[in-house]
Amino acid sequence: MTAPEQIQLENIADSDYEIFALLKQRYSPRIFKDRKVTEQHLHQLFEAVRWAPSSNNLQPWRFLYAEKGSEAYEKIVDNLTESNKTWAKNAPLLMLTAFHKKTDQGKENFHALHDLGLGLGGMTVQAQYMGIAMHHMAGLDHKKAQQVFNIPEEFHIVSAVAIGYYGGELDDLPQKLQKKEIRERRRMPQNEFAFKNRWGTD
Amino acid sequence: MTAPEQIQLENIADSDYEIFALLKQRYSPRIFKDRKVTEQHLHQLFEAVRWAPSSNNLQPWRFLYAEKGSEAYEKIVDNLTESNKTWAKNAPLLMLTAFHKKTDQGKENFHALHDLGLGLGGMTVQAQYMGIAMHHMAGLDHKKAQQVFNIPEEFHIVSAVAIGYYGGELDDLPQKLQKKEIRERRRMPQNEFAFKNRWGTD
Repeated sequence: MTAPEQIQLENIADSDYEIFALLKQRYSPRIFKDRKVTEQHLHQLFEAVRWAPSSNNLQPWRFLYAEKGSEAYEKIVDNLTESNKTWAKNAPLLMLTAFHKKTDQGKENFHALHDLGLGLGGMTVQAQYMGIAMHHMAGLDHKKAQQVFNIPEEFHIVSAVAIGYYGGELDDLPQKLQKKEIRERRRMPQNEFAFKNRWGTD
Repeated sequence: MTAPEQIQLENIADSDYEIFALLKQRYSPRIFKDRKVTEQHLHQLFEAVRWAPSSNNLQPWRFLYAEKGSEAYEKIVDNLTESNKTWAKNAPLLMLTAFHKKTDQGKENFHALHDLGLGLGGMTVQAQYMGIAMHHMAGLDHKKAQQVFNIPEEFHIVSAVAIGYYGGELDDLPQKLQKKEIRERRRMPQNEFAFKNRWGTD
């Protein structure tokens, strides 16, 4: 089964209200097409982040990416949790995400982590538009990665992201993950997180 | 001058690489059309967040919104900084954003703030698709807001967002903000935040 079929059959969001197609079709695969992400597409991905909003326009997002086959790629893999390692190496590109901790006045920028997420939200949509999937991973040893890549202390590593064109085969995964790959996707209903006028559900 | 003209003349992102139209046209206005956000559109906005990815699918995002004219709306305004107050009341809808601090195991969820941003990134694109603008504000008294709305301690308020259909008139703003509204938008170049194989610029 190829990824487009999966989108059609299993992975497309079973949304309660209609949402924009690129958001509805997005998911976080563990398989990818065996194809290098082009340099042009990479630039377009980062350009999408670039024009995201951020607190005081500080643009605290930072990224370190590496292509499959490079030494840097293996170094990123080394920092992933064991369970992420089993599938993330299917991706032609791996990326570390980080944020700059301080404002221009040297104060702590509380919103930097939020703004990194906001930027990645835009990147994810740009990716989807180009047929590229992004699978965010919280499971990594961020302290070790910081050390291995000599990342200055004023930055904080947040996640690793597996990036590649939608595609690949379910057989690229161990049996256990094949089931996970096509299982139903679940979300809490809106009334549990969006409140009108006062906090909490009625 | 109306907002579509502004987009065409001034506010559209002067991007170095082509990006998806909804990302390119997005900006953070201080003026809005004098029109209520429909309930259907509100549901679609929250649905876009709902299907965003989050660490361990914890969906830590929470929102409290209020319509212009309501008591809750005025309570949100009261918590904004003076400079945000001057324009935010142009918006037909104001929203507080927050995240759930803990995992299901009661541990601190470091990624919650990032995931709130990621969800809002999707919401922003859904909004843009429907002609709705979102202006994120870091400038608010989050402790006071937490108290005024009786928000439990396990949640952390992050930002306020002004939401409404693109439109309105520049004259809706004080002179000083009119200039700000149409000034050139600037961003750092890609090579200052996206690094290949190793950290930092060459």
